[in-house]
Amino acid sequence: MSFDALWESILEVGREPSTGGYRRFAWSDADLTLREWFIDCAEQRGLPVEEDRNGNLWAWWLPAGWQGDPVDAFVTGSHLDSVPDGGAYDGPLGVVSAFAAIDLVRARGIAPRRPVAVAAFADEEGARFGVACAGSQLSTGELKPERALALRDADGVTLAEALTRAGRNPRHLGADPTLTDRVGVYVELHVEQGRALDLLDRPLAVASAIWPHGRWLFTFTGEANHAGTTRLIDRRDPMPAYAATVHTARQAAELHAAVATFGKLRVLPNGANAIPSEILAWLDARAADEPTLTRLVERISAEARKHAAGDRVELRVTAESVTPLVEFPAAPRARINRALSRLGDLPVLPTAAGHDAGILAAKVPTAMLFVRNPTGISHSPAEYARPEDCHYGAEALAAVMADWVTD
Amino acid sequence: MSFDALWESILEVGREPSTGGYRRFAWSDADLTLREWFIDCAEQRGLPVEEDRNGNLWAWWLPAGWQGDPVDAFVTGSHLDSVPDGGAYDGPLGVVSAFAAIDLVRARGIAPRRPVAVAAFADEEGARFGVACAGSQLSTGELKPERALALRDADGVTLAEALTRAGRNPRHLGADPTLTDRVGVYVELHVEQGRALDLLDRPLAVASAIWPHGRWLFTFTGEANHAGTTRLIDRRDPMPAYAATVHTARQAAELHAAVATFGKLRVLPNGANAIPSEILAWLDARAADEPTLTRLVERISAEARKHAAGDRVELRVTAESVTPLVEFPAAPRARINRALSRLGDLPVLPTAAGHDAGILAAKVPTAMLFVRNPTGISHSPAEYARPEDCHYGAEALAAVMADWVTD
Repeated sequence: MSFDALWESILEVGREPSTGGYRRFAWSDADLTLREWFIDCAEQRGLPVEEDRNGNLWAWWLPAGWQGDPVDAFVTGSHLDSVPDGGAYDGPLGVVSAFAAIDLVRARGIAPRRPVAVAAFADEEGARFGVACAGSQLSTGELKPERALALRDADGVTLAEALTRAGRNPRHLGADPTLTDRVGVYVELHVEQGRALDLLDRPLAVASAIWPHGRWLFTFTGEANHAGTTRLIDRRDPMPAYAATVHTARQAAELHAAVATFGKLRVLPNGANAIPSEILAWLDARAADEPTLTRLVERISAEARKHAAGDRVELRVTAESVTPLVEFPAAPRARINRALSRLGDLPVLPTAAGHDAGILAAKVPTAMLFVRNPTGISHSPAEYARPEDCHYGAEALAAVMADWVTD
Repeated sequence: MSFDALWESILEVGREPSTGGYRRFAWSDADLTLREWFIDCAEQRGLPVEEDRNGNLWAWWLPAGWQGDPVDAFVTGSHLDSVPDGGAYDGPLGVVSAFAAIDLVRARGIAPRRPVAVAAFADEEGARFGVACAGSQLSTGELKPERALALRDADGVTLAEALTRAGRNPRHLGADPTLTDRVGVYVELHVEQGRALDLLDRPLAVASAIWPHGRWLFTFTGEANHAGTTRLIDRRDPMPAYAATVHTARQAAELHAAVATFGKLRVLPNGANAIPSEILAWLDARAADEPTLTRLVERISAEARKHAAGDRVELRVTAESVTPLVEFPAAPRARINRALSRLGDLPVLPTAAGHDAGILAAKVPTAMLFVRNPTGISHSPAEYARPEDCHYGAEALAAVMADWVTD
C-alpha cells in the first residue's frame, strides 16, 4: 500500500467537522478506532500485534524462524492521540511512515536480521488526563501506576475507569521489564513543530535534544459572588490576579529566552453574572536548560502570589509534570547520518516539544527525525506537511531501517 | 404548612454535593423537578396551576365564584432556576414566601376580592442559554421567540430542542397578550444581593430602581499553535489581550463608579500545550444610569481592541442583552409602605441585579421587597438569609397581599 493510501485511511477518524481538527483523546471512541486501524495495518502486512501492559501497541516484523521474545529490535513509530482540535500530522505521521517504511524495505527484497517493530504509544499528548507521554512514562517506570490510575478527565472519569470501559484491566499498568531488552533503538519520525526547516529550505532534520519542560497548575481561589451587586472593594475575584499572571509569564519568558503559555483554563462556576470562586490555569513552560526553567517558573509563581495576595485570593501552584533536558545520544544519530549520507549533512535541531522518544531515552537508545512544517503551525487544524516531504521522510526512515536490520 | 417546612421541601433539588451549590438550569431535570414541586405546593392549597406559553408557572387563588379569566390580580413570586453553583435563596425565597403568604392570609380568615397568583418565571438567570429573564422577556415581547428558540447551551442544544425534550411545544413561545389584563400588580420578594440592609441593621427594604445592565460577548480570535515550539514573536495568542482587557474593565469600572466583571470564559481548544485559537469572554457591566453604562462599555471595548490589535488578534464585541434603567413606580411602593406602616419607614434601595419585576415593569405595575443578606454574598453556595428575616419577609408579604386583596 502506498504512503498516500495509508495516510488517507486514517484521515477521518476523530475529526471534528466544525473545526476540521482532531479530537483523538486517550481511550475515547476515536482512540479505540485508531487502535483498530493500527491492527488492520499490521494484519494486512502479516505483522502480529501486541498491546503491552500500558496500552502501547507493537506490530512485529520478525526475522524468519525467530523463536521466543523479540530482542534488540529496531523500533519506529510515534502516537495516534491528539490535543483538542489538533492537526493530522503530530503523531500519526510517525506511525504511517513506519508502516510505509516496512513496505519500502520489503519491496527492496530485504529480510531483517533483527526484529523490527512499529510502535504507537498511548496518550502521548495527555489531553484527557493531564499527563503527557503517559504510555511511555508508565513503561519506563517514570509514572507510577497508582498516580496514573487516579488521574481524572474533565468529566471526573479516572484513567482506571476509562481503561475498564475500554475493556482493559487497570491492574496491568506498570513498568515494562522487557523494554530495555526488546528495544535496540527507537527512531521516532515526527512533523517539525516550528519553522526551522522551512527557513533552512530542507525537508528533514535529526534531533539533538528536547528542552526541559513541564506543566504547572495554578489554582486561584477567591469567593463567588453576584457580579452586579458586589462592590469592587468587597470582591475576592480571582480573575484579575490570573490576568496579571498571564502578563508576568509572558514577560518572564522573554527575559529568559524561554516560552511560557496559559492555554488551558477552568473557571468556576463560570456564570456570566457570577464572580468566579476559583480559576484553574495550566502553565506550560519550556527553556533551553533546567536551571533556566526552574528560575522561570519560580519567578512566575512568586509574582502570581503577589498578585493574588493583593486581591485576597489564595494561590496554589502544583507541578503536574516536569521533564528534564533530554540530549539524544550521539551513536544512533551518527548511524542515521551514515545511512542517509546521500542526503547530505542533515540539519540538527533541538525541540521544545516533548516526545515519547525523550521519555524512552532514559532506558534505551533513541533518535528522532523531523519532517518540514512549512508554516511551523502545530497543535492546530492548520498543521501541515507537504506530501512530497512526507514521502521523503518515509523513504529516509526506510533507508535507516534497512541499514539497521541488515547489520 | 409552615414557612420552614416549605423551605426545607425544596432544599435538596438540584444541589451539587461537591460544592453545596445549586445547578438548577432551565429545562434541566432539576428544573422539571422544581416545576413538579411548584405544582405540589399549589395542589396542597387547592390552587389550580397554569403553565403559560413561555413556561412561566401561575398558581391561582381566585375569589369564590370567580368566572372566566383572572384579571387585575395581585401576583407575587420569583423564579426557581439558579446560576451555576448558586445559592438557595436567589429566586426560591420569593416563591416559597408567596405560598407562605397565602397560608398566612388564609389563616387570618381573609377571602380575596380579587385574584391572587403565585408566579415562577422561567429561566431568570439565563445560566444555560445566555439570556437572563427569558421567560418574562418572552411574555412582554422584549425577547422574540425566533431569537430565543435558536439560543444554544454549552453542549450546542438549542432552547427549541430543550423545550421539545421537556415535552413543551417550542411553537407556543411568544408575547402574552393577557399579561396586562391579568396582572394588577407584581410584587417580587427577593433576598438582597448586597450588604445595605446589614449595614442599616434592618430586615426588609423596598426597591427604588434596577441599574441599567447588560452582558457583552468579547470574542478574541488568534491562531492555535504548539505552546512549546512556537516562538513568542510568532504567536497570535489571544490570552494576553484578554488578560489586559480584564484590567481595563476593572479600572474603567472604578472610574465610572460602576461594576464590570468577566466571570464566564470559553477557551478553545483549551489544551495545556496549545496556544488558544479563540477566547470567548462574557462581560457583565452595570452602572447607575444608561449614559454611564454606555461610556463604560465603549471604553472597555476600545481598549480591548487596542490590546488585540497589538497581538494580531481579532476582536468582536456583541451585546447579548442590555436592560435599561428600571425605576419602580411610586404608587405600588406607597401602597406597600402604607400596608406595612407598623414596621416603620422601610429602607428604599436600588439594586444592580436584574429581576423579572424589572422586565414586567414595562407592561404592568411592579414592586420589590428585599430581605436582609447578612454577608451580602449571592450567586454562591454561601448565599444566606437568617430564618427570622425570612419569616419577617413572608409576614410582610402576607400583610401586603391582605391589604391588596381586601381592597
